Amino acid sequence: MSILFKNARILKFEDENFNVLNDACLIVNGKKIKKIFTKEDKNYKKTLDASYERVIDCKGNLLMPTFKNCHAHSPMTFLRSMRDDLPLREWLFENCFPKEALLTDDDVYWYTYIAILEYLASGIGLSVDMYAHKDAYVSAFRDAGFRVIISHDFDERNIDPNIIEEDYIKYNNLKGKNADLVGARFGVHSEYLNNDKTIKQVADIVHRYKKPFYAHICETKRETDECIARHKITPVEYFDKFGLLDYGGAGYHSVWLTENDMDIYKKKNFYAVLNLGSNVKLASGTINLPLMFKKKVNMAMGTDGAASNNNLNFFKEMFLASSVPKLNSEDKDLTSYKAEEIFKIATINGARCFDMPEIESLEEGKLADLVMIDMKNPSMQPINNIITNIVYSGSTACVKLTMINGKILYEDGKYNVGEKVDTIYKTAEKLKNQLLAKL
Amino acid sequence: MSILFKNARILKFEDENFNVLNDACLIVNGKKIKKIFTKEDKNYKKTLDASYERVIDCKGNLLMPTFKNCHAHSPMTFLRSMRDDLPLREWLFENCFPKEALLTDDDVYWYTYIAILEYLASGIGLSVDMYAHKDAYVSAFRDAGFRVIISHDFDERNIDPNIIEEDYIKYNNLKGKNADLVGARFGVHSEYLNNDKTIKQVADIVHRYKKPFYAHICETKRETDECIARHKITPVEYFDKFGLLDYGGAGYHSVWLTENDMDIYKKKNFYAVLNLGSNVKLASGTINLPLMFKKKVNMAMGTDGAASNNNLNFFKEMFLASSVPKLNSEDKDLTSYKAEEIFKIATINGARCFDMPEIESLEEGKLADLVMIDMKNPSMQPINNIITNIVYSGSTACVKLTMINGKILYEDGKYNVGEKVDTIYKTAEKLKNQLLAKL
Repeated sequence: MSILFKNARILKFEDENFNVLNDACLIVNGKKIKKIFTKEDKNYKKTLDASYERVIDCKGNLLMPTFKNCHAHSPMTFLRSMRDDLPLREWLFENCFPKEALLTDDDVYWYTYIAILEYLASGIGLSVDMYAHKDAYVSAFRDAGFRVIISHDFDERNIDPNIIEEDYIKYNNLKGKNADLVGARFGVHSEYLNNDKTIKQVADIVHRYKKPFYAHICETKRETDECIARHKITPVEYFDKFGLLDYGGAGYHSVWLTENDMDIYKKKNFYAVLNLGSNVKLASGTINLPLMFKKKVNMAMGTDGAASNNNLNFFKEMFLASSVPKLNSEDKDLTSYKAEEIFKIATINGARCFDMPEIESLEEGKLADLVMIDMKNPSMQPINNIITNIVYSGSTACVKLTMINGKILYEDGKYNVGEKVDTIYKTAEKLKNQLLAKL
Repeated sequence: MSILFKNARILKFEDENFNVLNDACLIVNGKKIKKIFTKEDKNYKKTLDASYERVIDCKGNLLMPTFKNCHAHSPMTFLRSMRDDLPLREWLFENCFPKEALLTDDDVYWYTYIAILEYLASGIGLSVDMYAHKDAYVSAFRDAGFRVIISHDFDERNIDPNIIEEDYIKYNNLKGKNADLVGARFGVHSEYLNNDKTIKQVADIVHRYKKPFYAHICETKRETDECIARHKITPVEYFDKFGLLDYGGAGYHSVWLTENDMDIYKKKNFYAVLNLGSNVKLASGTINLPLMFKKKVNMAMGTDGAASNNNLNFFKEMFLASSVPKLNSEDKDLTSYKAEEIFKIATINGARCFDMPEIESLEEGKLADLVMIDMKNPSMQPINNIITNIVYSGSTACVKLTMINGKILYEDGKYNVGEKVDTIYKTAEKLKNQLLAKL
């Protein structure tokens, strides 16, 4: 399908900087961005008047890259607001785990669909997921036409780490409809759910493929302290000892890094994936972003699951990342990093963290993954600094349209995701009540 | 006008607790809520089938009281995202003050209109404003049909505190269209912009009228420390020494209260108005909410101005108030207060803080100030705990309709506020550019 977006502001990313192209047009052809142009283009009039299957007048609204959700547990939407304001371990062991143990593939499929709706409505275009029932959640993403990367959740109870390699081959080589939207990466759940033997076996696979590695790292102080008690080294040093950071990758949360841990991240081109919404709500701690920026550590962003967060909303994540770490540091002048850098973390860096340059930015020849921001939302007015505005003032109400792989999946509150919204909600509600009845 | 809302969930507040009435109806007649009823009502069918000027099928969406913005500087929208990530005093003295000094009544009128749009789109139904150019911003609120309370901004540079009494009489007794939407309260800007003489004169007025008093109190550590250096007592003790807390009222921000300050608030039935968005973004500090709840201090909520926050969004304020003070306290079990209590602060308590029982809750005979929450927004699904969901997962995208004084001012992204939205944005942008050109 060919679509012309006209009268747009277009957020370009060039030489590591953002700039807004005014009065611009963007042509999508099939899955790709075919052309970006302005009145200065010598064929302007001709290109504008060519035939397109759809012409969208953006009326000055902004086209920007999608947000990349680099750490998620999408099927957990069913636990949203089921229990809150509880001690962490009571919440986890008494609320979450017993219910998750009862999940069927059918449950996971429909609960994932709710997350997909939420992603689209808040401008997110990629979910990096870590959860059981992989076939079930991958099916939901494929049926909806949404991008997903499986970050393997292996833990020692699964016994044989070769499953990581099998899943890597399987999910990177799917055939059929929307198979190109699915990928897989090497990884484990965490240090605390593994042992020396399994980690050694995983390291062998990673070194054989020379590919990046992803895991939960240093989310809570307790987890970090217990690793040090077990191994006399931090979780980062532990994974690094096995060479698991040699080809990059990322540590989800990365709240309790030491300075040496940060230096290792920097040296190995390893990313920290920020999950402020979850960390703040569960009081897990505050990541030292002023120091991370000073050390130039690579960072991306994620939402974690809806049970802990409780929503899947990058506007909230960006506001929190821009403010809470400054509040909780010595940087009372607020100068250690800027809103633009958080915006880059939420968009460009997410694609880089998973080596997906084809969805990194809006550029001719790249895949057409984009979001339209409603500049007529009052929180965007008057127009002073568009990026700062998105980071500090934006909300999901500012998202007018989300396109993935050249297809408009969300526009003005309406979804185009295979299943009907009412069917998704009704089925999920029914399945959730059936699951609760089994407890 | 008579309006029937049918097939609604209605959030009732009874005996200090919220509960949701399912399959319920609500009739608005003129400015008031005439009737709330369910199928159990003996005249159910007859009432449902009576004649109304408009019937709104809520399709299971929630009707709840409006949020009450108890501390705002509405005209400051023009400074939104103009400068950020700067040291506080540089931001204030070099960015804000020189521009504010150039403001005309016309500027203030149009910038206030942007705030009104933002309030409506996020379910806020009252703004308690502290700013210069009172006639100008009051005009915008009246023209839009939005509620405003003037919290007097007197400071010693105005020389004669009698202006507080004059304004109190004037704005509490306006005549004409929407005059009933305007009120005024006694107050001053702060301790640091006053002196013993002016504060004594203000105290005389407050005691003569036996009415509550409102001011900025303990927003920053510096402000608090400087008061102690000047007067050997805290700002709260200072105001209390003059008897200014004798009839209640509120301290805006109240971040740096001592335990004794909290005890004074409690004893005098004085409210703390939370402004987490501003406090977090400007790194002003974290209010000790676990201790405030333990001491049962009364609290309400505000947004502060758009220059510091940078948006006017109670969903953000509620999430921050529910999480950041726990993160930054010893309450690692997260049990010191619950989401429901923050929701009460954002709604019921706001009306109580300004002695406005007529807009406190949805009840027959009260004024029809209400919000419809879109339960079909994916962040509201599945439906586990509606109030927790609004506090932790909600966003402005969940607001479908806002009604004030029986009139629908916002519905499905469309405004009914006297001026056209495009006119508001264009005029505000033009005036802002003219103002900047004068610098």
